[in-house]
Amino acid sequence: MTNQDIFQLRLASYPEGLPNNEHFERTHDALPEVKDGEISFETTWISIDPAMKGWVTQKRSYMPPVAIGEAMRAFGVAKVTESKHPKIQVGDWITGMLGVQSAGVLDARLVRKIDTSFAPPEKYLGGLGMTGYTAYFGLFDVAKPEPGQTVVVSAAAGAVGSVASQLAKMHGCKVIGIAGGLEKCNYLKQTLKLHGTIDYKNQNVAEQLDKLAPQGIDVYFDNVGGQILDDVLMRINPHARIAVCGAVSQYENLDNMIGPKNYMQIITQSAIMQGFTMKDYIRRIPEAFTKLYNLEHKGELILRDHIIEGIDNFTEGLRMIYAGENQGKLLLKL
Amino acid sequence: MTNQDIFQLRLASYPEGLPNNEHFERTHDALPEVKDGEISFETTWISIDPAMKGWVTQKRSYMPPVAIGEAMRAFGVAKVTESKHPKIQVGDWITGMLGVQSAGVLDARLVRKIDTSFAPPEKYLGGLGMTGYTAYFGLFDVAKPEPGQTVVVSAAAGAVGSVASQLAKMHGCKVIGIAGGLEKCNYLKQTLKLHGTIDYKNQNVAEQLDKLAPQGIDVYFDNVGGQILDDVLMRINPHARIAVCGAVSQYENLDNMIGPKNYMQIITQSAIMQGFTMKDYIRRIPEAFTKLYNLEHKGELILRDHIIEGIDNFTEGLRMIYAGENQGKLLLKL
Repeated sequence: MTNQDIFQLRLASYPEGLPNNEHFERTHDALPEVKDGEISFETTWISIDPAMKGWVTQKRSYMPPVAIGEAMRAFGVAKVTESKHPKIQVGDWITGMLGVQSAGVLDARLVRKIDTSFAPPEKYLGGLGMTGYTAYFGLFDVAKPEPGQTVVVSAAAGAVGSVASQLAKMHGCKVIGIAGGLEKCNYLKQTLKLHGTIDYKNQNVAEQLDKLAPQGIDVYFDNVGGQILDDVLMRINPHARIAVCGAVSQYENLDNMIGPKNYMQIITQSAIMQGFTMKDYIRRIPEAFTKLYNLEHKGELILRDHIIEGIDNFTEGLRMIYAGENQGKLLLKL
Repeated sequence: MTNQDIFQLRLASYPEGLPNNEHFERTHDALPEVKDGEISFETTWISIDPAMKGWVTQKRSYMPPVAIGEAMRAFGVAKVTESKHPKIQVGDWITGMLGVQSAGVLDARLVRKIDTSFAPPEKYLGGLGMTGYTAYFGLFDVAKPEPGQTVVVSAAAGAVGSVASQLAKMHGCKVIGIAGGLEKCNYLKQTLKLHGTIDYKNQNVAEQLDKLAPQGIDVYFDNVGGQILDDVLMRINPHARIAVCGAVSQYENLDNMIGPKNYMQIITQSAIMQGFTMKDYIRRIPEAFTKLYNLEHKGELILRDHIIEGIDNFTEGLRMIYAGENQGKLLLKL
């Protein structure tokens, strides 16, 4: 592959359930010419995120879906190979919605320079990137736990969940992490040192919540929706806050999702369910980066990456993330 | 009936679906003796509220359920017939959770004196009472619409909904009221002069929302839940606020409610769903009363009562309220 080649994974059709190989087409073209204001880049890392299902649905969402024939949308980090924008130089590292492609040409205003002297480039996709920022703003601006409160996090061993769990713990909260499988729960207990863990694949979540949070739940950082959300709702305290970050248990059938049947508890407990996306926090990224970087640098924030390689493994990565098979932030190395 | 007699409707069993005659027992006893700190009273009006279903369910709620054998819980207004409390005199008017009973004895601290020189006693159960306060705090403290925003209110011809609709309109919002049947919609249009109305029994709510709120919905004051909540969710604007006041469409089967399947829209639109009960606002009742009283006195707030008579008609009133047959605040006159 030279700089002049571009391998892409293009959306071929909108999936009904979860996206897989049949919904993408692998293409190989020459890199387009770089025009004024544009840059070309060579991608080194691509982020695989649960949100991707939402990007390939025609259901109403926070941004238009990827168009058929367009490279699949993805966050990535890349090295600039040519620049016709005064503020970006060849050799600079950038991040943004670079797409599932080995290289590309983009309007320079759509990317953000990153400083790899702070951290290796792939960290800007994980705990020091959108993943970390999502956890940071979701926890402190939406969930707003107070020290001493009981915080439950679902998909707690996942990319966002593990950062949210650790931040809540550092904030002085009692943190209960829900994850699937013994390995993840051991990680939460032994490495992240959460106060309690629930293995939803092998334990009764409702019973364990009663046991681990007999005093009720003040804050829930929800990545999964479904039955676990209902189990939590039945145990929230007055004025509980639920930050709705995702509903990965429901992504298989976005057109026929199951809503939280216990949502009346938000009336009886004067509680709040609040959704959020990073759209509202773009201007505050420097604040989140600085906090997360400092914590990680001091060894107080533990970030775990799960790396797979090669553009042809992108759909396998998607499968893994919806099956909950990744151990930490799932990254595709090119 | 003398002051010494007390007719009660006592809870006989917890209903699976909606409560009806078979779940209550009508009793006739002598009034108990009034002890120190207590008062006796003769009830003149009883409020019939959608919340009553929640008071006779053993499902987790904001207060314990009515016990079997206990007089059915209800707000009422009454005249004091005997007092052993220094701050309450015989002849005073009081309100509180007086129960479905013709007379009673209560700890004086559980009731609140009302001033019938401001308004007739029954108004303290409707627009100038809990009903009005619920609309007031739900709108201004929970839904928080801004002037110029589009506000949708369900059960808009109901006791709470009609006050919330009018307050939102006076606040400078564009108000769309949803109600069942032509009579109610005409009332909303011609008497309350809302900007738009939708008859959910005879119109397609989703289509009408598209037509009446092409610019999207900023605030939803929800009394009904169910499909209408889902229709609204698909049309909320970024940072929309949903005040969850009730879910009367789901009260028939509290144990198997249907949650809002489109709740993911609160993520994509960074929206808030917030529940509330009057529990949090008890100390601010004077504020709400003063505002509502002044508006009603100036003729700016229109309150409509639907009066039925006699304790034996209580369950018929319950049936009416869940069937949406009442036109305005449903009151039982004794």
